Amino acid sequence: MAVTREEALEYHHLNGRPGKLQVVPTKPLATQRDLSLAYTPGVAYPVLEIEQDAELAYEYTNRGNLVAVISNGTAILGLGNRGALASKPVMEGKGVLFKKFADIDVFDIEVNTLDPEVFIQTVAAIAPTFGGINLEDIRSPECFEIETRLQAMLDIPVFHDDQHGTAIILGAALINALELTQRKIDEIKVVFSGAGAAGISCARQLVKIGVPRENIWMCDIAGLVYHGRPEEMFPQKAEFAQGDRPASLREVIRGADVFIGLSAANLVDEDMLCSMRCDPIVFAMANPDPEVRYEIAHSCCPGGIVATGRSDYPNQINNVLGFPFIFRGALDARARCINDEMKIAASHALAALAKEPIPAQVLRAYHLDHLEYGKDYIVPKPLDPRVSLWESAAVAQAAIESGVARRALDLEAYRQRLAAGMPAE
Amino acid sequence: MAVTREEALEYHHLNGRPGKLQVVPTKPLATQRDLSLAYTPGVAYPVLEIEQDAELAYEYTNRGNLVAVISNGTAILGLGNRGALASKPVMEGKGVLFKKFADIDVFDIEVNTLDPEVFIQTVAAIAPTFGGINLEDIRSPECFEIETRLQAMLDIPVFHDDQHGTAIILGAALINALELTQRKIDEIKVVFSGAGAAGISCARQLVKIGVPRENIWMCDIAGLVYHGRPEEMFPQKAEFAQGDRPASLREVIRGADVFIGLSAANLVDEDMLCSMRCDPIVFAMANPDPEVRYEIAHSCCPGGIVATGRSDYPNQINNVLGFPFIFRGALDARARCINDEMKIAASHALAALAKEPIPAQVLRAYHLDHLEYGKDYIVPKPLDPRVSLWESAAVAQAAIESGVARRALDLEAYRQRLAAGMPAE
Repeated sequence: MAVTREEALEYHHLNGRPGKLQVVPTKPLATQRDLSLAYTPGVAYPVLEIEQDAELAYEYTNRGNLVAVISNGTAILGLGNRGALASKPVMEGKGVLFKKFADIDVFDIEVNTLDPEVFIQTVAAIAPTFGGINLEDIRSPECFEIETRLQAMLDIPVFHDDQHGTAIILGAALINALELTQRKIDEIKVVFSGAGAAGISCARQLVKIGVPRENIWMCDIAGLVYHGRPEEMFPQKAEFAQGDRPASLREVIRGADVFIGLSAANLVDEDMLCSMRCDPIVFAMANPDPEVRYEIAHSCCPGGIVATGRSDYPNQINNVLGFPFIFRGALDARARCINDEMKIAASHALAALAKEPIPAQVLRAYHLDHLEYGKDYIVPKPLDPRVSLWESAAVAQAAIESGVARRALDLEAYRQRLAAGMPAE
Repeated sequence: MAVTREEALEYHHLNGRPGKLQVVPTKPLATQRDLSLAYTPGVAYPVLEIEQDAELAYEYTNRGNLVAVISNGTAILGLGNRGALASKPVMEGKGVLFKKFADIDVFDIEVNTLDPEVFIQTVAAIAPTFGGINLEDIRSPECFEIETRLQAMLDIPVFHDDQHGTAIILGAALINALELTQRKIDEIKVVFSGAGAAGISCARQLVKIGVPRENIWMCDIAGLVYHGRPEEMFPQKAEFAQGDRPASLREVIRGADVFIGLSAANLVDEDMLCSMRCDPIVFAMANPDPEVRYEIAHSCCPGGIVATGRSDYPNQINNVLGFPFIFRGALDARARCINDEMKIAASHALAALAKEPIPAQVLRAYHLDHLEYGKDYIVPKPLDPRVSLWESAAVAQAAIESGVARRALDLEAYRQRLAAGMPAE
């Protein structure tokens, strides 16, 4: 949805309060006695309890509902490295989305360093503050090492949303797109344009849900990623190298069932689309302008399925379907991490929800008369309140079943609380 | 005010929300369009503006109203080193006091390190997030170097409240106590019990408001701080060394006009009080139990002035009279630091306000029929809404006049906004 510069800047200081969030008390503070409970001398008691048993921080502080959205500003939206301070509006925005969609409190933290080592040490040092860490807009390839090392150091979830958020929603969309075009997941040829953090994480997610690694062909600005390619390589990209010779995206896309774009605008034309298999699946997710415009892809491949990152066309692949609900489930199970089982469960939960009839309130929110599972509706809408119930519960269940939950959540009671829109106990 | 363990623990998870704060949006987020303004694609515009001009972070993000309350948990309340995580209830409590008293948003940050170097690098790295840094409950002597070095690195205020908060309120109390007992500030003998962060900072503040350094005698657990003392010394303590021979607090207090206790319970007895000058000033601020009980000091020195850190006796020396309003003024002037001029202005503003008639609403809040400037009322009450107007305005004015303000605030308009309880423009 297009918005102008003036509208966006005005929005950011509406109501006489610059920025998009404030921090408010949840306990009474009216009387001298309230102050004695909230601060000295009363606060000494929870201090002593937590010193004896660290898990009690989840009973007496906000830690269990508090996520850090942390960036160094090196890969802001599609804008690249703009510095830590300039990333603050994005991180605040992500924070309020966490709150709106999943009632999770977020502190946005902007870290002023380009050195991954300093970044890692900084985040690790402040980790006691939080119940989870959402890394954001950190450039590749540093983002891989940063996430992996932090997760190894910490016993709270560390999740780089630019990698996994898109991957999880894409996974859901692909599960349904394959069903709707009657393809088998282990027989498809998938071509990527874009081998950054999101591209690599999406490819990894596809492998996890059943796409054979040898069926994935990854292209980037230098063309096909092949074994021994001399330029623009790093180890995570090399996981997906194919063959040993250069090729262009135009050559590679020929005969593909699925195109996945996480790169830049207008890299795919009609000839390339026509060279794909019949009724192709085209996920052109570059923001704000996709690799091929929706109208072109749709008219060129009327029997196929087209998805973009845009909210003004069908099938938006939107991270907001993921991060709030994945963290909700992870926090409520007090998961030590967000592992593959939890990510896969999230994809399947979203795919399954898309097949359910859509409540009238959701149709109204989008000014729609009718919408049902099919080629124009393969993933749920973000404002659908059922997403929390389906996805958070699935993630929490996967955390418990895979042995990373620190809390034995009663899943039936938890589903009832989610359905009622209540915070976790 | 005594509260029980059960009451304190229950308070900390009232309302089904563990902890004392939540983070809420200040902008509409109801529609798809709102989301496009708050996050992608609209948020790209403030990003680009801030990249061009860092000051615009104060227009388009919450930075200008956001303070970090940061601790490593090495000196929690009177409890000592209990670790970063265990300090979280205290830091959350401090955060909600900032909100209640001065409408300042706070992220509490618990830093998991005992190494001052790591602590400094961590805080410096996350500083773009914040408009100011309130250091809290960090043990001495590291706290001195941590604050000094961070302030030198950053162009936002860095303020260790355990040092300066108490010092500023104490300064106000002393100004009025001297007037009420008809003493001249440059003729008094002052004896300290306690030479930690607060003791040293209080002594420094007294020097700034006019007490000759040679009139200050500092004692700690090893007795008088004297030149060349072999034990329990560090450079900041040595600033206040007197003489070259050991002496006990009992010996040193003889003939003192002023006793200032920032140490531990029950170190001062009636004999010691009787050895002071006639009508002494006794500020026994150890928490929760003072160096001498109020009743004892009051009956022993009926013509003197007694203050404690407790809310259930007259003349509470309470940091909450300082930090919210000092930061309010500093943030609103966009001060680069909180310098001596601002601290002295805060002391004088509080001292002056105590001489004003007390509004009925303040009396009601404290269940009092009557209270007026005198030996039982030398500093304002924390719940007095005029504190913001007097103190924040004085601090902002001092910031501007001393040349550390980055914004040319219209002080008259600012006072009107403070008087109306409105946020800064």
